[in-house]
Amino acid sequence: MTSAARKFTIKVPCTSSNIGPGFDVVGLSLSLYLTLRVTVDPSSTNTSPKLSYTGLGAEEAPLDAYKNLTTRTALYVLRSNNVQAFPTGVDIQVHNEVPFGRGLGSSGAAVVAGLLLGNELGQLNLQKDRLLDHALMIERHPDNVTAALMGGFVGSYLLELSPEEEERRDVPLSEVIPEYPPNASFDWGTNPPSPPHNIGHYIRFGWSPQIKVIAIIPDFQVSTASARSVLPQTYSKSDLIFNLQRLAVLTTALTRTPPDPFLIYQAMQDKVHQPYRKNLIPGLPDVLASVTPQSHKGLLGICLSGAGPTILALATEGEERIVEDVVRTFREKGGIERCDAKVLKVTEEGAVVSYD
Amino acid sequence: MTSAARKFTIKVPCTSSNIGPGFDVVGLSLSLYLTLRVTVDPSSTNTSPKLSYTGLGAEEAPLDAYKNLTTRTALYVLRSNNVQAFPTGVDIQVHNEVPFGRGLGSSGAAVVAGLLLGNELGQLNLQKDRLLDHALMIERHPDNVTAALMGGFVGSYLLELSPEEEERRDVPLSEVIPEYPPNASFDWGTNPPSPPHNIGHYIRFGWSPQIKVIAIIPDFQVSTASARSVLPQTYSKSDLIFNLQRLAVLTTALTRTPPDPFLIYQAMQDKVHQPYRKNLIPGLPDVLASVTPQSHKGLLGICLSGAGPTILALATEGEERIVEDVVRTFREKGGIERCDAKVLKVTEEGAVVSYD
Repeated sequence: MTSAARKFTIKVPCTSSNIGPGFDVVGLSLSLYLTLRVTVDPSSTNTSPKLSYTGLGAEEAPLDAYKNLTTRTALYVLRSNNVQAFPTGVDIQVHNEVPFGRGLGSSGAAVVAGLLLGNELGQLNLQKDRLLDHALMIERHPDNVTAALMGGFVGSYLLELSPEEEERRDVPLSEVIPEYPPNASFDWGTNPPSPPHNIGHYIRFGWSPQIKVIAIIPDFQVSTASARSVLPQTYSKSDLIFNLQRLAVLTTALTRTPPDPFLIYQAMQDKVHQPYRKNLIPGLPDVLASVTPQSHKGLLGICLSGAGPTILALATEGEERIVEDVVRTFREKGGIERCDAKVLKVTEEGAVVSYD
Repeated sequence: MTSAARKFTIKVPCTSSNIGPGFDVVGLSLSLYLTLRVTVDPSSTNTSPKLSYTGLGAEEAPLDAYKNLTTRTALYVLRSNNVQAFPTGVDIQVHNEVPFGRGLGSSGAAVVAGLLLGNELGQLNLQKDRLLDHALMIERHPDNVTAALMGGFVGSYLLELSPEEEERRDVPLSEVIPEYPPNASFDWGTNPPSPPHNIGHYIRFGWSPQIKVIAIIPDFQVSTASARSVLPQTYSKSDLIFNLQRLAVLTTALTRTPPDPFLIYQAMQDKVHQPYRKNLIPGLPDVLASVTPQSHKGLLGICLSGAGPTILALATEGEERIVEDVVRTFREKGGIERCDAKVLKVTEEGAVVSYD
């Protein structure tokens, strides 16, 4: 008896985290996608998944299934659910629209794609809430992965793990940016721990349909690791309160129609990460200070997307002038010659699997 | 020509701030009131307002209009709007249901009553948004005053004042707890600065009608000043993120019907103020740890109200057992012999003036 080949598609949105004051808290899923076209042919004797990659980052993404972040995440999901190997005959065609290292959640999308891939390859029937537990064993910052998996505009918190769980968590998988030993192969990372249940909790906020999302994407990468390394280990009480106050107002203010620029612009100010990242992103303070609701009709707020360098502007109108002036300020004040710009939609449904 | 006497009533709700992670951010207005019955008789030659006081705190509240927090706030509102003195013939009968120094916003209620009193006495016609600016010149923690003035469940942020504004703000009025020089009299604090406009911004969250608010009020006072003095000046990044994550989820989670105890209980955890206040409130850690959704059906979350010692429990049912067990734990673990307990309503309208 021969089984027929299975074919399915996994589609994961890009995400923007932080939105000003919500450092490591909020994520917004947006309409650029990482797409996997997967074929599983049981009649093949090929034991290692075959990967091909087109689109952004094609020259950088590893095509070895034991090194690629998506397939390694899939293997983690399989192994922590007692399936020790990929099925035979897996072929994965990746197409990527999410620029690498720009603060639009490319790594989070790769992890989330891997969660769904592992779930489908092993026919594990894990629900999204349970897949989130798996994601949070790999990536302890819930903002991007939760938004990419669940869709929409979400806030999340992590349960603190017990010391034993924290130790068990230390599975040989990458944090954020793929880091793997040069000798990684099929027998590396076997028998990983099963994630504790309900590590991550999230809620979906509303999003006013009048709010457009503009991403201005400078043409250079900022590694999440270095963007984290510039942050202090402690914060003053007043900076802490500054962000708590603004984040509390922001998540509800963005649900209201019509949105209130007076309220939102100030609520998108931040003292936890943006001030520390200005040396990584030349021109950043000038960009944030020069594009305001007073100078740009329709603007609601402007912030760094994730760890940058992408700038996120929220607006009800006036997208063209906002883009022009951010691009010009980056060029004149930061010496950044090239930026891409996109007006994106908030995607409601998050990561999806569809069968052909 | 003789003018008729004017009579009006000012009614201000009590408030609970913080609700776990929302330190200096969120406030909830609740159904215990500070009430002022005011008569202004222009035919009287009495230049100093006559104050009487009944209810809670009657033995402590100053009855000298230049020392009482409410009338001093009223005088600040008058003077910063170019009315240098109280009108003649003012008689104020205060009745207070808000216990002093228990974390239920008694000082904030006194300030808010003073805002409305000054506005009415001077017939200034200031709107509530503008009165909030005045409040924030006196009290830089917006949580209680915003909730008492506006009503409902609110989050607020303060604009940062410029150095000049910050200096001008230093008017001779109290912070939080009345502190005034022993020689304070009618000519002390003349010509105060007018507040900058729009210092404080706020948003009203929803509140699920299924959520009941239980206040358990131990029979001793905690001064806000000492409750603030035990807090550190700096916080670790991980404690900061802990509170940001929970607060972001909490404000929206409390709007949902039916409310989710699984989500809310964890979202009400805090690392910014409660852990530092345990020595001021004997038994606090035991109370917070022993009353959980697992042990008490219907419980959603439990926290300190403001700076304490009042405990706030949110629940859909099971109020009696929650009260019993909090009171017993305070007695057995904290040596606190007496507690009052009340089930309160969230008041939608905030502070109001009504004319007879």
